[in-house]
Amino acid sequence: MNQIKEQAVKKSERVRILISCQDQPGIVAAVSQLLYQNGGNIVQSDQHTTDPIGGMFFMRIEADIHDFELNKQKITQEFQHLAKQFSLNWRMERASKKKQLAIFVSKEDHCLLELLWQQKAGHLDAEFALVISNHPDVREIVEEMDIPFYHFPVKANNKQEIENLQIELIQKYQVDVIVLARYMQILSAEFTKTFPNQIINIHHSFLPAFIGANPYARAYDRGVKLIGATAHYVTNELDEGPIIEQDVQRVNHRDQLDDLKKIGKYIERTVLAKAVKWHVEDRVLAYGNKTIVFS
Amino acid sequence: MNQIKEQAVKKSERVRILISCQDQPGIVAAVSQLLYQNGGNIVQSDQHTTDPIGGMFFMRIEADIHDFELNKQKITQEFQHLAKQFSLNWRMERASKKKQLAIFVSKEDHCLLELLWQQKAGHLDAEFALVISNHPDVREIVEEMDIPFYHFPVKANNKQEIENLQIELIQKYQVDVIVLARYMQILSAEFTKTFPNQIINIHHSFLPAFIGANPYARAYDRGVKLIGATAHYVTNELDEGPIIEQDVQRVNHRDQLDDLKKIGKYIERTVLAKAVKWHVEDRVLAYGNKTIVFS
Amino acid sequence: MNQIKEQAVKKSERVRILISCQDQPGIVAAVSQLLYQNGGNIVQSDQHTTDPIGGMFFMRIEADIHDFELNKQKITQEFQHLAKQFSLNWRMERASKKKQLAIFVSKEDHCLLELLWQQKAGHLDAEFALVISNHPDVREIVEEMDIPFYHFPVKANNKQEIENLQIELIQKYQVDVIVLARYMQILSAEFTKTFPNQIINIHHSFLPAFIGANPYARAYDRGVKLIGATAHYVTNELDEGPIIEQDVQRVNHRDQLDDLKKIGKYIERTVLAKAVKWHVEDRVLAYGNKTIVFS
Amino acid sequence: MNQIKEQAVKKSERVRILISCQDQPGIVAAVSQLLYQNGGNIVQSDQHTTDPIGGMFFMRIEADIHDFELNKQKITQEFQHLAKQFSLNWRMERASKKKQLAIFVSKEDHCLLELLWQQKAGHLDAEFALVISNHPDVREIVEEMDIPFYHFPVKANNKQEIENLQIELIQKYQVDVIVLARYMQILSAEFTKTFPNQIINIHHSFLPAFIGANPYARAYDRGVKLIGATAHYVTNELDEGPIIEQDVQRVNHRDQLDDLKKIGKYIERTVLAKAVKWHVEDRVLAYGNKTIVFS
Repeated sequence: MNQIKEQAVKKSERVRILISCQDQPGIVAAVSQLLYQNGGNIVQSDQHTTDPIGGMFFMRIEADIHDFELNKQKITQEFQHLAKQFSLNWRMERASKKKQLAIFVSKEDHCLLELLWQQKAGHLDAEFALVISNHPDVREIVEEMDIPFYHFPVKANNKQEIENLQIELIQKYQVDVIVLARYMQILSAEFTKTFPNQIINIHHSFLPAFIGANPYARAYDRGVKLIGATAHYVTNELDEGPIIEQDVQRVNHRDQLDDLKKIGKYIERTVLAKAVKWHVEDRVLAYGNKTIVFS
Repeated sequence: MNQIKEQAVKKSERVRILISCQDQPGIVAAVSQLLYQNGGNIVQSDQHTTDPIGGMFFMRIEADIHDFELNKQKITQEFQHLAKQFSLNWRMERASKKKQLAIFVSKEDHCLLELLWQQKAGHLDAEFALVISNHPDVREIVEEMDIPFYHFPVKANNKQEIENLQIELIQKYQVDVIVLARYMQILSAEFTKTFPNQIINIHHSFLPAFIGANPYARAYDRGVKLIGATAHYVTNELDEGPIIEQDVQRVNHRDQLDDLKKIGKYIERTVLAKAVKWHVEDRVLAYGNKTIVFS
Repeated sequence: MNQIKEQAVKKSERVRILISCQDQPGIVAAVSQLLYQNGGNIVQSDQHTTDPIGGMFFMRIEADIHDFELNKQKITQEFQHLAKQFSLNWRMERASKKKQLAIFVSKEDHCLLELLWQQKAGHLDAEFALVISNHPDVREIVEEMDIPFYHFPVKANNKQEIENLQIELIQKYQVDVIVLARYMQILSAEFTKTFPNQIINIHHSFLPAFIGANPYARAYDRGVKLIGATAHYVTNELDEGPIIEQDVQRVNHRDQLDDLKKIGKYIERTVLAKAVKWHVEDRVLAYGNKTIVFS
Repeated sequence: MNQIKEQAVKKSERVRILISCQDQPGIVAAVSQLLYQNGGNIVQSDQHTTDPIGGMFFMRIEADIHDFELNKQKITQEFQHLAKQFSLNWRMERASKKKQLAIFVSKEDHCLLELLWQQKAGHLDAEFALVISNHPDVREIVEEMDIPFYHFPVKANNKQEIENLQIELIQKYQVDVIVLARYMQILSAEFTKTFPNQIINIHHSFLPAFIGANPYARAYDRGVKLIGATAHYVTNELDEGPIIEQDVQRVNHRDQLDDLKKIGKYIERTVLAKAVKWHVEDRVLAYGNKTIVFS
């Protein structure tokens, strides 16, 4: 990048604008006009209409906005005005503000390690606020990286109490997204309702096949030829929340249950890392029980 | 191939030998010794043991047997002897004897056309004995290729009667394998029991997800990110028989139900064609509710 | 769809607008404003900027335009005005106007058959204007479907003459896109220059590996573990034009050259069908030696 | 596993036998007879014949051998006898003897980390004898895991001297396989000849596309729609050795060069890990410039 470019980039700030509303003519024109008149250059824009007539409209815009600090208040006010006019849901995120992650993990460390590596390698633009586990196994790995680690040995009789402590920590650390990186505890309805579309779980099957416990054992017994993993937002219904990403790998008759688990770890790591990456880049819009992923 | 090679090949015949039994030492030695002493050269050999101790043993051998016609009776007798000694299930198939297919189809022609094309292009080493349909739509395509076509308009009150006629036809044409190429009727328990591991169905979902009717509509409603198809042997339990092959394709929020169906047709065609190919090449061994595919 | 919807849809017409220019602020705003003010509702919109500073900007819009016939001239004039202002390249296509295809084929029929089936099944929104071949093999298939077939036995000494006749036919039939569906002749520079980004070829390798003749034989000799196919626009440099789509399939040591060719046909069919589909839906923009595919 | 099983397993030892020779009748019979008569139970057996007439024959057997220590000498002698009779190349490996790895790495740590994680998680049955690098960057990671680390800053004028030191280390640590885990130096012909089919490299392209330097930049410039990685044995010809494994991932016009590199790292990690796993499990036989992988 030459010097002129660099200066231009320095003065501007990258923002992401997410919009949803009933589809109606004129939205794109109004939004793009607003940004243009406030020094914004649209770098990427994605939209989706569920049905041209009577459907829902979704848009994600990445824009570089000139002198954002000076214009921020005015832009916000104009968007609020537009929101009223078109009955928009909207939010504007600064790309420079890194999302804070809380990772929940049990004994298996492969998903946690993948997320740590992705971030270190510059592929995951987020910060690890804290790691919470019902086992002490990953403490050392986590603390070596100067990430706070909290061990909560969940029992049948202390679950609610512990969840309350966890919610306190999540608020204290200003967490943006909770990642269940193979956390083998079921969260209560109260907990999940507190963080709608902010909890991402990795389920070790190709949902909706093998909902619930022991999916690999059940896949093995059924004799499937592909096994999968699914990253989804957590709702009150087990493994029924909006799916963000899924993938599969081929297996055959030679693969024993233990092999399925090993192959599965690859898929779990990759699928969860993608889902978290897309979430922290504000690429995922949940709508009903589905997601729109502007990847 | 030079002249000497050609002569050697001409005198020999390719056979496929399929064996299953309790695993025990000495089977491979005995079988390979038998073949060697009868002029057989093993061209390909696959085996699988479910568990080294107390498990089941499966083997598929392709061998070129010198002067097969002269040696056939002796080989058969020696295999029968071996079968007693090791409590083997076994069968020997001549590669030159093409399997006879009965295709069951409804209105959708994509799976039928794929099988026809595969055979014409030399990829599917089988013959189309007849096509049966509950609709007249594909009659022209089928009869143009000189394949007998039978139209049975199945109703609630004539199902058993029609199945009896179909069974008669299947026996008359000496059918080896029945392919349900998007046949939208559920066969009775009597019918399916008559042809164990001889009926291959293509189900338009990634089983065990979306068993039963309207899998694409249910996949669309669930918001999955991959859709699939499954070829399996038909048993008395709907969509629960041994899986032969499965595959998936990626979809996203832009894909409407109609798109899923279009994308799905690709997968159905490919998956069914593979399963039928493997079956007619004697590569599939069903065991319990699973398959071993020596592909 | 209810009655009100249907009426609304009937009065409107779906158009696709393709734009490219130097990136600059205000384009999206101007284009979306223009459409809004002329009764257009944007159904889908994709854009791409090669570089936020000094890069190129590409946009594809699908819009339903109210009373298009009445407004067509006004819209065109306003776009011409905009084109001057922003130095835009642009074109507007009516979705209802089906592209006319000329298929060039040699002996192998799998790509041709796939395209015919795709169209018949409603997946390929185009019409077969004519089929041209240097062999007579596919005449029957083609003429049965009431598509004009022309046989030109190309020799070393009549190539230019034949190309002239072919160009005449292409113009006579008002062809929009030429598809080389395994056409085993190399077209002259004059021919390819006549139809820039209008000739789609399927090359039977994963380009840029195995440019030129006998790619499967060379893939077999090299011992690759995946084989592929590539659909690309034809330029004057052999197999070097802008790539539209590629895909691969896994092979292993058991696969002989003949198996590679069989597996390859699957890939060729699928990859070419996708590329043609995207082209006729105006989803492909060529830029330099690359393509932007708004799929 | 019950007690009887466990005792049976304890007394036996798992071996892998690898055989190659001119194809000829009677080999399988002779080898399986030999094993049977020496208390061996074949657990898995794979074979491959390049051509039934005049081709090469390859076999890999996994067998549990009863009282292996007692029978080892006798088995070896009988195999030597067989080797003479059939002109066999053969070797027998004990599964319990873990292969010793020397990892060569430069600055990029993703392949190294993947191998370390795979081994820790029990997926890679090998030991890290030492890590060699031309940069100091990964020293801390390596030494924390108690693996010896050697830093050799390679310059134009000290290359041969350093290679000699490296060879000494490789011999001192009794290394079985050298893994070039994104080692950005080209090894000399002398070095590569010293370790035939014992050096595994990961090349960051889908070979034979983009041989040599900067494959991602060249893939980006060519506008490919899939990028890949290739694990191969190193020979004296750059990127031309026998391919063990390859894989690809889809990219599109939005992916900048930097994105290709990030996506590529996923593929590199996975492909290299598979190749090393197969090698240390004695599943790879190199023949000419190809590999047979009994995976």
